[in-house]
Amino acid sequence: MRPYLRDPAAIYAESFRTVRREARLERFPPAIEPLVVRLIHACGMVEIADRLAFSPRAAEAGQAALAAGAPVLCDCEMVGAGIIRRFLPASNEIVVTLNDPAVPALAQEVGTTRSAAAVDLWRDRIDGAVVAIGNAPTALFHLLERLEAGWPRPALILGFPVGFVGAAESKAELAGDPRGCDFVALRGRRGGSAMASAAVNALAQGASLRDPGA
Amino acid sequence: MRPYLRDPAAIYAESFRTVRREARLERFPPAIEPLVVRLIHACGMVEIADRLAFSPRAAEAGQAALAAGAPVLCDCEMVGAGIIRRFLPASNEIVVTLNDPAVPALAQEVGTTRSAAAVDLWRDRIDGAVVAIGNAPTALFHLLERLEAGWPRPALILGFPVGFVGAAESKAELAGDPRGCDFVALRGRRGGSAMASAAVNALAQGASLRDPGA
Repeated sequence: MRPYLRDPAAIYAESFRTVRREARLERFPPAIEPLVVRLIHACGMVEIADRLAFSPRAAEAGQAALAAGAPVLCDCEMVGAGIIRRFLPASNEIVVTLNDPAVPALAQEVGTTRSAAAVDLWRDRIDGAVVAIGNAPTALFHLLERLEAGWPRPALILGFPVGFVGAAESKAELAGDPRGCDFVALRGRRGGSAMASAAVNALAQGASLRDPGA
Repeated sequence: MRPYLRDPAAIYAESFRTVRREARLERFPPAIEPLVVRLIHACGMVEIADRLAFSPRAAEAGQAALAAGAPVLCDCEMVGAGIIRRFLPASNEIVVTLNDPAVPALAQEVGTTRSAAAVDLWRDRIDGAVVAIGNAPTALFHLLERLEAGWPRPALILGFPVGFVGAAESKAELAGDPRGCDFVALRGRRGGSAMASAAVNALAQGASLRDPGA
């Protein structure tokens, strides 16, 4: 067996060093750079830095929302499972409505996927929330439709749906017109729950480190 | 808002059609091809087909184990969360030991990560199990060490640790000498819990479709 690094702190340090050495991070404002580094760390691909779209104050908006106790609305269980609870600055609630018993009938009624229908159950919690979409393009599309129809604004939309049908298109729609919300999104087909969770984790860490008097 | 596909069955069909059109699948035995397609579907990257390593009977071994009721041992909660329970042919148990209260002390004692220490708690269930590693290179390295030390063999190792330190190395170690186990692994830095879950889901579907008399 070849030798390997076993010390968790050393592994983290070496990982982040590699990301910073290889990724093109120059274009990112300092506040969002730790989020970009964590995204790359989560997927093993430094080149995703070149495909990230974001609003200029996205990191600040997400950190402030989490510090103020905002819930995190996730489109699937995996995103929720990847959020590191001890990083959260205000024991923020993690909300996943996908498996709510009301969802299958609602999806049928609205004529859409379960992932999209589950978004309708966010209505009472969306105001000022952090939204983390790591799976379903239809969830992001549906959210944008609801925002157009007058829903209250979330503080931040983390757009990381993945795949071959609608993922690139839904993120282009978000980046092209974020409907008054701050956002971070990875353009193209790539994405996934690990990235969505990593983005939340980076913001949560940043929020915990903020000067409470600032 | 641009129009988008909302029908779940149509989305799945169009996704899998795109994967089959774009990915190089010719080299895969028929039994493992659905697993490869699901892996690509989970990450949005057709080119991973070119970096997959596997033993010739990996799919059959995994399907037979699941059909026989084998547990699925996962290195993190996200992998467990991504497994579609209704696909499982025998209500197979999903085991995640990472957050077992014994793990932190064990990690300290062994001088390794929590992910690696959590593997030691698989000892009584490893025989004939399906192992799904979607996060930690140290978990895969540690498992290989335990197998060298004489542990019973799992039926299949799904090797998808991700990242910049040890991920490529641990998967090269697995592919170079799978210690008598069947395996599937994605070479290089890429991987992740969504891929590990997708591999389990593909095997579970395959197992459910098998002729019970075969």
